[in-house]
Amino acid sequence: MTRLTLSLACITVLGFALPMLAVAQTSSSEPLRIIMFGAHPDDCDIRSAGTAAKWAALGHKVRFVSVTNGDAGHHEMGGGMLAMRRRAEAEEAGRRLGIEYVVLDNHDGELVPSLDVREQIIRQIREWDADLVLGPRPNDYHPDHRYTGVLLQDAAFMVTVPNIATRTPALRKNPVFLYYQDGFQRPNPFRPDIVVDITDTVDKKIDALDAHVSQFYEWLPWHAGYLDQVPKDPVERKAWLKKSRAGNITPEVRAALEKTYGKDAGSKIEYAEAFEICEYGTRPTEADIKRLFPFLP
Amino acid sequence: MTRLTLSLACITVLGFALPMLAVAQTSSSEPLRIIMFGAHPDDCDIRSAGTAAKWAALGHKVRFVSVTNGDAGHHEMGGGMLAMRRRAEAEEAGRRLGIEYVVLDNHDGELVPSLDVREQIIRQIREWDADLVLGPRPNDYHPDHRYTGVLLQDAAFMVTVPNIATRTPALRKNPVFLYYQDGFQRPNPFRPDIVVDITDTVDKKIDALDAHVSQFYEWLPWHAGYLDQVPKDPVERKAWLKKSRAGNITPEVRAALEKTYGKDAGSKIEYAEAFEICEYGTRPTEADIKRLFPFLP
Amino acid sequence: MTRLTLSLACITVLGFALPMLAVAQTSSSEPLRIIMFGAHPDDCDIRSAGTAAKWAALGHKVRFVSVTNGDAGHHEMGGGMLAMRRRAEAEEAGRRLGIEYVVLDNHDGELVPSLDVREQIIRQIREWDADLVLGPRPNDYHPDHRYTGVLLQDAAFMVTVPNIATRTPALRKNPVFLYYQDGFQRPNPFRPDIVVDITDTVDKKIDALDAHVSQFYEWLPWHAGYLDQVPKDPVERKAWLKKSRAGNITPEVRAALEKTYGKDAGSKIEYAEAFEICEYGTRPTEADIKRLFPFLP
Amino acid sequence: MTRLTLSLACITVLGFALPMLAVAQTSSSEPLRIIMFGAHPDDCDIRSAGTAAKWAALGHKVRFVSVTNGDAGHHEMGGGMLAMRRRAEAEEAGRRLGIEYVVLDNHDGELVPSLDVREQIIRQIREWDADLVLGPRPNDYHPDHRYTGVLLQDAAFMVTVPNIATRTPALRKNPVFLYYQDGFQRPNPFRPDIVVDITDTVDKKIDALDAHVSQFYEWLPWHAGYLDQVPKDPVERKAWLKKSRAGNITPEVRAALEKTYGKDAGSKIEYAEAFEICEYGTRPTEADIKRLFPFLP
Amino acid sequence: MTRLTLSLACITVLGFALPMLAVAQTSSSEPLRIIMFGAHPDDCDIRSAGTAAKWAALGHKVRFVSVTNGDAGHHEMGGGMLAMRRRAEAEEAGRRLGIEYVVLDNHDGELVPSLDVREQIIRQIREWDADLVLGPRPNDYHPDHRYTGVLLQDAAFMVTVPNIATRTPALRKNPVFLYYQDGFQRPNPFRPDIVVDITDTVDKKIDALDAHVSQFYEWLPWHAGYLDQVPKDPVERKAWLKKSRAGNITPEVRAALEKTYGKDAGSKIEYAEAFEICEYGTRPTEADIKRLFPFLP
Amino acid sequence: MTRLTLSLACITVLGFALPMLAVAQTSSSEPLRIIMFGAHPDDCDIRSAGTAAKWAALGHKVRFVSVTNGDAGHHEMGGGMLAMRRRAEAEEAGRRLGIEYVVLDNHDGELVPSLDVREQIIRQIREWDADLVLGPRPNDYHPDHRYTGVLLQDAAFMVTVPNIATRTPALRKNPVFLYYQDGFQRPNPFRPDIVVDITDTVDKKIDALDAHVSQFYEWLPWHAGYLDQVPKDPVERKAWLKKSRAGNITPEVRAALEKTYGKDAGSKIEYAEAFEICEYGTRPTEADIKRLFPFLP
Repeated sequence: MTRLTLSLACITVLGFALPMLAVAQTSSSEPLRIIMFGAHPDDCDIRSAGTAAKWAALGHKVRFVSVTNGDAGHHEMGGGMLAMRRRAEAEEAGRRLGIEYVVLDNHDGELVPSLDVREQIIRQIREWDADLVLGPRPNDYHPDHRYTGVLLQDAAFMVTVPNIATRTPALRKNPVFLYYQDGFQRPNPFRPDIVVDITDTVDKKIDALDAHVSQFYEWLPWHAGYLDQVPKDPVERKAWLKKSRAGNITPEVRAALEKTYGKDAGSKIEYAEAFEICEYGTRPTEADIKRLFPFLP
Repeated sequence: MTRLTLSLACITVLGFALPMLAVAQTSSSEPLRIIMFGAHPDDCDIRSAGTAAKWAALGHKVRFVSVTNGDAGHHEMGGGMLAMRRRAEAEEAGRRLGIEYVVLDNHDGELVPSLDVREQIIRQIREWDADLVLGPRPNDYHPDHRYTGVLLQDAAFMVTVPNIATRTPALRKNPVFLYYQDGFQRPNPFRPDIVVDITDTVDKKIDALDAHVSQFYEWLPWHAGYLDQVPKDPVERKAWLKKSRAGNITPEVRAALEKTYGKDAGSKIEYAEAFEICEYGTRPTEADIKRLFPFLP
Repeated sequence: MTRLTLSLACITVLGFALPMLAVAQTSSSEPLRIIMFGAHPDDCDIRSAGTAAKWAALGHKVRFVSVTNGDAGHHEMGGGMLAMRRRAEAEEAGRRLGIEYVVLDNHDGELVPSLDVREQIIRQIREWDADLVLGPRPNDYHPDHRYTGVLLQDAAFMVTVPNIATRTPALRKNPVFLYYQDGFQRPNPFRPDIVVDITDTVDKKIDALDAHVSQFYEWLPWHAGYLDQVPKDPVERKAWLKKSRAGNITPEVRAALEKTYGKDAGSKIEYAEAFEICEYGTRPTEADIKRLFPFLP
Repeated sequence: MTRLTLSLACITVLGFALPMLAVAQTSSSEPLRIIMFGAHPDDCDIRSAGTAAKWAALGHKVRFVSVTNGDAGHHEMGGGMLAMRRRAEAEEAGRRLGIEYVVLDNHDGELVPSLDVREQIIRQIREWDADLVLGPRPNDYHPDHRYTGVLLQDAAFMVTVPNIATRTPALRKNPVFLYYQDGFQRPNPFRPDIVVDITDTVDKKIDALDAHVSQFYEWLPWHAGYLDQVPKDPVERKAWLKKSRAGNITPEVRAALEKTYGKDAGSKIEYAEAFEICEYGTRPTEADIKRLFPFLP
Repeated sequence: MTRLTLSLACITVLGFALPMLAVAQTSSSEPLRIIMFGAHPDDCDIRSAGTAAKWAALGHKVRFVSVTNGDAGHHEMGGGMLAMRRRAEAEEAGRRLGIEYVVLDNHDGELVPSLDVREQIIRQIREWDADLVLGPRPNDYHPDHRYTGVLLQDAAFMVTVPNIATRTPALRKNPVFLYYQDGFQRPNPFRPDIVVDITDTVDKKIDALDAHVSQFYEWLPWHAGYLDQVPKDPVERKAWLKKSRAGNITPEVRAALEKTYGKDAGSKIEYAEAFEICEYGTRPTEADIKRLFPFLP
Repeated sequence: MTRLTLSLACITVLGFALPMLAVAQTSSSEPLRIIMFGAHPDDCDIRSAGTAAKWAALGHKVRFVSVTNGDAGHHEMGGGMLAMRRRAEAEEAGRRLGIEYVVLDNHDGELVPSLDVREQIIRQIREWDADLVLGPRPNDYHPDHRYTGVLLQDAAFMVTVPNIATRTPALRKNPVFLYYQDGFQRPNPFRPDIVVDITDTVDKKIDALDAHVSQFYEWLPWHAGYLDQVPKDPVERKAWLKKSRAGNITPEVRAALEKTYGKDAGSKIEYAEAFEICEYGTRPTEADIKRLFPFLP
């Protein structure tokens, strides 16, 4: 069987026989199933709403999951009432992107990599029958971000073990796990294994961010000390948002874009999202990546 | 408004003004919503399947919830595989009774009154929009039983607080909470506040117990040392089950039956279930009890 | 030495030699030091602001401690912002009563009897150098109330152990611990060991409750469904508050009042607060009670 | 089979069919196996060293287990070094009584009823293959005492479940569980179900207490404020110890002694220990009690 | 003293004075004491059974410890019953290798780096009086593997602190700690500091793996989707096992083999195990390595 | 505004817009506020007492915080009594350095990165209104050191969130966070971003270490096996301490010294302390570093 041979070949390179399944072949007619995790109800959007919108446009199924309910992310509100507001904002962002948005009920600013939250994440991945799981690296400036990264690593592989969390049937395959881009260098920098030109969806992305009113127009500007610079006019403030939040392209990502899209095209891309392959999920082959990112050239 | 007056009257008797809502009036055309908790997937059945069957027969909505998945309750199986078997048995018992049966995924024999499990219970009660909640007292021979009792007490009232577990909207009324009957005397014995003649549904009850094959025909007899006495024949073993598990009537319950059903009728009832009103739920008036137990005389 | 003899006599009656110190004699010129615990920033006020005001009027030192910050106690606010509002309300209540009010930073609705919170309480009692500690029984309708009761029991005696929480020097005497009155009957009812006529301070008490605007005029009426009945006018609403919150006198408390204040005077007292002696603190003699409650006849 | 019939009879009385085994018959030639738990390395001694010495004298096997290592029980020492001293004292006390003494390694003053400590206790009971388990009630002045009581309740029955703590094979019978005497009244007082005249072993008991030098001659007198009254001379201080620590006989215990030993003999007994039957272990019949306490008349 | 001089020299290189003891000199006549940790009852075998067999052949003492009981590692069994089967398999593997095999009782798939499990590991290392401790790096595809790595790091040094876990006397020397080989690259790849030619014991190693029937012939093939390829015949399946599980040699390990065994011999070695020195144990000198790995050239 | 422009420039380089505040400008007349964390009451001293003394000499405010109370750091003492001794030693060290020394009350050898301890640290940083926070990296030989590093990372940024730990008002700026030097290489070595010549304060540093009698003259030498080499004479032992504990200069630190102080001067510096900038605090510009380390050339 081709699939198995490939899988064992991969094992040979590593020198270690891991009990991992190859990426199951889904027939081209079935939509891909992608699940993304963020610590707060806006993190997925910042990191990969552009790519999410590309999948959604092709009819693939995307779910964003916020592991905390965001109940600490404001300077004038808090608790359950803020959580409700942010859940509504997240659901609106989901509608704009054409995806599902789930907000789990763990306290913002108090996330720890407990078995309880790990199990919540295992269930999300299983229920979504995910081909692909995305989330932050365990290195980032906010402890909730870091522990979301740890929790995802801890859920990888365990999603396939039938004796764990039996109420939600186990997957027969370990999904591919990817990390979002970040700028942290220690203990090792982000590596852009996969880069996506999001020029065609960057406005959708900004549209999603724009739905998180409590964050991009209130809390984050207040926190950074420039609340007075937020435009009042809805159109103006979305433009302002695009200017400051559409993301910059690092030299490493630029190099990867040129490799993926060709020297010339790659050098001109203005908006991109990048991902690193996590070693704890199934390691995708080149063919797997093509299939999972059907919009790549 | 009558409701409020009653509620304040109740407060006056106690001498303490509790922030509790009176039992909301549900119009007679809407079905009652009852939720019962047990520690293991057979506990609700033993304690009150007879009464559950009476509610179900009248079109009311009943859900049984097992707080643990029962994964330690056998001498030859265990873990997730046993949990799956017991979930299937519980669902079969539910079908036989005409009710829903939910099995949560906490380890059997390891239940503790954590905030995590409390929140699971709060969500169950809220999602079911319960009028009535039943469960064990915090006194019983099995630690899982005791902690199920504690967890229910800890969920009472909190089901009405909107800032708690915001993903599942809070109830506007604290349900009535009842304890199942048990035989323990310390620190104080069970008090049969409400007693129900289950003569007409005792066979349904035995039918439900009979679905828990792993328990009543395997584990419990093995544990008690009389596995060899379990009949092989399906009809015989159900009869054997009825003889040993239909319950005995204590003098206190007998007295309450005579009070409720009349001296004569009450003295002849062979099968009954009894309940004690928990002080931490809404305290039902006589009228509330009539409405919640519409089959009482 | 007289003190020791009394103490050993007490031990003989119980038949058990407990390593407890007798109540230390404080010379009459030193003020008494009383600390009261509640689960939320208004609980102490409801249970014993009247007695607190009496102590304060005589120059004794009283501290109220709310073990949670009350961040779940509202229907339109929550989290840290609500906690800040309630801390300010509590401090205002303290000013009105002539006492200190401390609000600890544990989440409302999520209190558990952990070692961490136990240690917070041990430190409060030690720092206050308390002669007398008051709090709820471990039986009450709200889990935070119950666990505050458990935590106080768990702090009793441990406040005297020098190896525990060494940063705050241990007390040389275990204080007297008292429970507030409540109406719960299971597993055993409240016993009014000490009763206090608060007729002269009931208006101070209502004044303190009135400072908790978020609670008595917003959250609690909303929760109980009569928000529309709250008067808008400040004077009117305080009168309304007194009518509904000044407390009722149960037959048991009435009997104790008649015993303490004399049949005639006791039968006419309109406002009272009552306390039960906790077995885990130092057991006060009659003389101790006289000294600790100098306003008793 | 007689055993089973008795067991079922017992079940009938309670009206509830508990999955409990009857007390297994041990042939008279095999020694009884008794295990006693205390929170600290001297608690078992105070509560029942007299009875332990009687069992030991008849060749029965007794183990004392201290659930904490006592590392907070001193005013001039602490931590691991104190734990080592107290372990040595406990072992010496064990030698004097002719029993085993095990000191577990949990912190003194920080005991909580966790699954981890519960499992330690389950293993102790199983390894000892106990017929009889003794410990404190969950009501007592020291939190470690109370939680030791809770932990024992939580270990009862679970010692018989093979899926729990599999490394130590489960018992086929739930032992009889007894509580030590204490003087606490809330929520309910101790009930002397079994009383033992220890006149012939009271000196052995005092001898055992005398081995806990750090406690009876240092920490406890210091704590209670009479360190200066402790005699320096070894013989004198043991006499002093006997005078203050041999225990008093409450009216309830006196009545039980007269019932057990006869009106006349019972009225004269000077030293006794008393026990209450815990509802969560196997309920012993009169014959079981005779067999388990072979020195009773 | 030579030992101390060496130790201080080592400190100078690092620029930091660590409170570490030099590797104690054991006279050549005393056997070495090696303890290896794995997360599951087959992990030690996969990683280093070949080297273990070499030590055992020379009369040195080796203990394998599985930190979890493996109760989730199957598709048709689970819980305590699976744990019992795997304990028996592990003990059989130990017999085949001439070593001890201990299986701790923590749940498979639920390992967290708690103080409780850390203490279990500290006790194992102390009881074994280990010269050498081996375990996984904190980077690996299974959360239990990673946390076993964390737990070992957390036990290092603490095994020498007498105030910790006093029931098991502290070691006077911090052992050498080594990591097993793995193929993970992030945050940094495995570094083969010590490599061992296991050509002479590879069949012993396969023999040990063969004892874990539930794993190598059932669960792992089922999980990876090739259960149908497992030979039925005992001889054939062992050959199949050797082919797939004896391990591959990475370029880095090959280079280290050539350095250790000589260019020529090293280039021909077919089966090897490799180890990285952990910075948190005693850092071994070249001489220490020679002594600890007496079969190295 | 200059401040904001700089901050946004920094964001552009990283390619990620982090909600971080720029380092607030403190006018030159206000003293700097520096807080340093160590796991034990001597860790801050070893790592940076020289630099602390330089700040103190210029009138800046420095607080050392020991996260544990050091109650396991001795071979002949332990527990609360040792904690008290070490607190006194730490306070003496603080007096000698002209700084404050706070010892928190968490157990030595049992530190875990819990929310409870994180909150203690958040409060310390906020109460001190810190411009600069220093602590260990999460790589070090002692688990308490590593978890202190994790806890500091987890407190960074959260100190600025008003909804967290509301009792202590949040900072409006995320301080600069620095790591102390250590010698560990995995997963990545320490990087000397900032180096300080402490030649003028090294004797003050040794003076501070000298105050920790229980550590430098008792426990550490005993642990390392050279207790007999500790001089008895106070002057001699301080000289001995300087010889062994003043620190060595690694090649990386030497290179940084030459860069900072000039090739010539830098090559001759005998005593230095070095720091790495943590990515989770505010990233200081060159100007910020000059301002925060006013004694740098």
